[in-house]
Amino acid sequence: MRERRIITLTTDFGTRDGYVGIMKGVILGINPQATIVDITHAIAPQRVEEGAFLFATSARYFPTDTIHVVVVDPGVGSARRPIAMQSGQTFFVAPDNGVLTHAIVNRQALTNDSQTRAVHLNRAQYWLPNVSNTFHGRDIFAPVAAHLSLGIPLEALGDPIRDWMRLEADLPARRADGALIARVRHIDHFGNLVINVVGPRLNEMDRTRITINVGGRVLRGIQQSYADVEPGEVIALFGSSGNLEISVRNGSAADVLKARVGDEVVLT
Amino acid sequence: MRERRIITLTTDFGTRDGYVGIMKGVILGINPQATIVDITHAIAPQRVEEGAFLFATSARYFPTDTIHVVVVDPGVGSARRPIAMQSGQTFFVAPDNGVLTHAIVNRQALTNDSQTRAVHLNRAQYWLPNVSNTFHGRDIFAPVAAHLSLGIPLEALGDPIRDWMRLEADLPARRADGALIARVRHIDHFGNLVINVVGPRLNEMDRTRITINVGGRVLRGIQQSYADVEPGEVIALFGSSGNLEISVRNGSAADVLKARVGDEVVLT
Amino acid sequence: MRERRIITLTTDFGTRDGYVGIMKGVILGINPQATIVDITHAIAPQRVEEGAFLFATSARYFPTDTIHVVVVDPGVGSARRPIAMQSGQTFFVAPDNGVLTHAIVNRQALTNDSQTRAVHLNRAQYWLPNVSNTFHGRDIFAPVAAHLSLGIPLEALGDPIRDWMRLEADLPARRADGALIARVRHIDHFGNLVINVVGPRLNEMDRTRITINVGGRVLRGIQQSYADVEPGEVIALFGSSGNLEISVRNGSAADVLKARVGDEVVLT
Repeated sequence: MRERRIITLTTDFGTRDGYVGIMKGVILGINPQATIVDITHAIAPQRVEEGAFLFATSARYFPTDTIHVVVVDPGVGSARRPIAMQSGQTFFVAPDNGVLTHAIVNRQALTNDSQTRAVHLNRAQYWLPNVSNTFHGRDIFAPVAAHLSLGIPLEALGDPIRDWMRLEADLPARRADGALIARVRHIDHFGNLVINVVGPRLNEMDRTRITINVGGRVLRGIQQSYADVEPGEVIALFGSSGNLEISVRNGSAADVLKARVGDEVVLT
Repeated sequence: MRERRIITLTTDFGTRDGYVGIMKGVILGINPQATIVDITHAIAPQRVEEGAFLFATSARYFPTDTIHVVVVDPGVGSARRPIAMQSGQTFFVAPDNGVLTHAIVNRQALTNDSQTRAVHLNRAQYWLPNVSNTFHGRDIFAPVAAHLSLGIPLEALGDPIRDWMRLEADLPARRADGALIARVRHIDHFGNLVINVVGPRLNEMDRTRITINVGGRVLRGIQQSYADVEPGEVIALFGSSGNLEISVRNGSAADVLKARVGDEVVLT
Repeated sequence: MRERRIITLTTDFGTRDGYVGIMKGVILGINPQATIVDITHAIAPQRVEEGAFLFATSARYFPTDTIHVVVVDPGVGSARRPIAMQSGQTFFVAPDNGVLTHAIVNRQALTNDSQTRAVHLNRAQYWLPNVSNTFHGRDIFAPVAAHLSLGIPLEALGDPIRDWMRLEADLPARRADGALIARVRHIDHFGNLVINVVGPRLNEMDRTRITINVGGRVLRGIQQSYADVEPGEVIALFGSSGNLEISVRNGSAADVLKARVGDEVVLT
């Protein structure tokens, strides 16, 4: 059964040029039984932080023996290391630029696993024969993931490391004068504003009496579902990722509030 | 063989955020052998009518034992019911908002089956453990489809219903003074205008002498193929969905005629 | 094992309308075991030359027993022939408009195979029962690819032909007064300019002393990797396809240089 393992792909490659198809061709050339699933290829070019956030949001819904490949790689061809990590039977393959941070933190919290292992991918026999300086997704990450799916152990792929790069904690909201100063973390396809505040963070506040200042509007209370307001109205609620979200029922909060990633959202 | 059944996905989720990838992760976690196929994720947000049309156009080309998941769901988190339907060995999983209407009508016409069964999905043991108020695609529809693909019978998933929601008949063209007043039903990637008139509707008219008024132009006759006109010329012909289409050979009719969905097209 | 063969899809269909999903439904209805991989569906509508280039760049990374379907088909419904070709155990299915040219040339160079066979697809028993005049991807190319994946031999699908259409050689750069006049061949998702010059073409020039004129800028020397310049700087290097590329480190050369496909690039 191991051979049919899932390999996910998260990249900033877009889907216009065939780069993603090429990675799939390389993987299936090594393991024809792999099940490949796209998470997204629309990470903004070279935006490691955005990739780390979206990947972490998605990865937790995959089976525990999944192999995740994440390629947002502004440092390709430089001294930055290619790495692979293992936590339980979940594997991660990526450039060492922090793009795995939030997913690993999530997984460690979930599994109580502080034993995540990491290796520097430096065994060329598991790569394509010719490695370019511009497309390690094809030349290193895809073949390494395919070999992992065939049961090659992590330690065969390179030397152990402990100093893999972590991003700062995920843009935490900060306290000031009894208020919580948060930010728009992501704007999704529907125009929902995903805020860097998760449920537990608000435990000490009264969710029905909270006031949210966003884009010049004042919202009162956190609702349960879109149906709690009329179509076209702005609403705050906890979204599917567990983060606070500002939405417009059957509309786009980003359009209505002219909001952008990074905008301040104040909770009092 | 049953375990390798096809599950199709039609949504308005876009492909930027990982929502579709998450649904696939959930499905494969329940049935690792499922074959998942994307129909489209580019339905305009919350446009149930558009989803119903595009889904029906596509569904008929899948094997008869396919499981179709359609999530265009402006009422998520409200009282609208999640449902599943069965016609022969074809299954449909969707919110109860009419998005399945045209596909079910097509299938009933095709199979002479008036025995379509429907259930209200209300057995939580077939869902993810925690159900959000904003993402039933992940929490209800994906796991239900995966369980169907493993052979769980429809009736196990919820209570039978008969009053599932139907949309109005598919925007029929209307007669007026010997003319047929039709509309632009959909504009595709190539800029072809798909008109809400199908072949049999025109049986009483003379296809070579028909006159079509669209966007200020007058077209005479319905042609057989793009090659019947010069590149750049406007042409009327029956498209691949069986609907009348207005096209520009090797160009975009939407651009040339400045047409939009809903525009009137008059046939005399 | 043969039944699990890979079928790739390269089209100009976009992913909005369900056309690609329909092709997959047709394929899986004939061979439920096929592994279908998207190369790209974002070829500019009816741009055969662009399709030929991107397809050739990607096809070489797939296993040698892959079946490739390429549908960029401005002549659909006209007298242009549908064809299939075989080189070793690799198959190609496409309209006869030259879209396979570069991939076949690459493959012949790679395998020393001058024995590529081609057939005119004229055996309707391997198609869908009703063939439209506008969507041969669904009606002819998808079913033919599925039948090939089941082991139907090439010669069963139609009459042998030798005069399949070739495009001109791939827009070669030309010599003039000791300079090499090249062009922007493609602009990718990152804004990299892919130039119609491959490595061997420059063997006689000194790569460190070469001067490249592009978009009013003068670049000196071809670098090894993006890391050889500062973020935001323009750089020339050999890209992952083997072609010369003009890039901006962590930025878009297309934006910085206001470049377009077809622009001249002069090497001296």
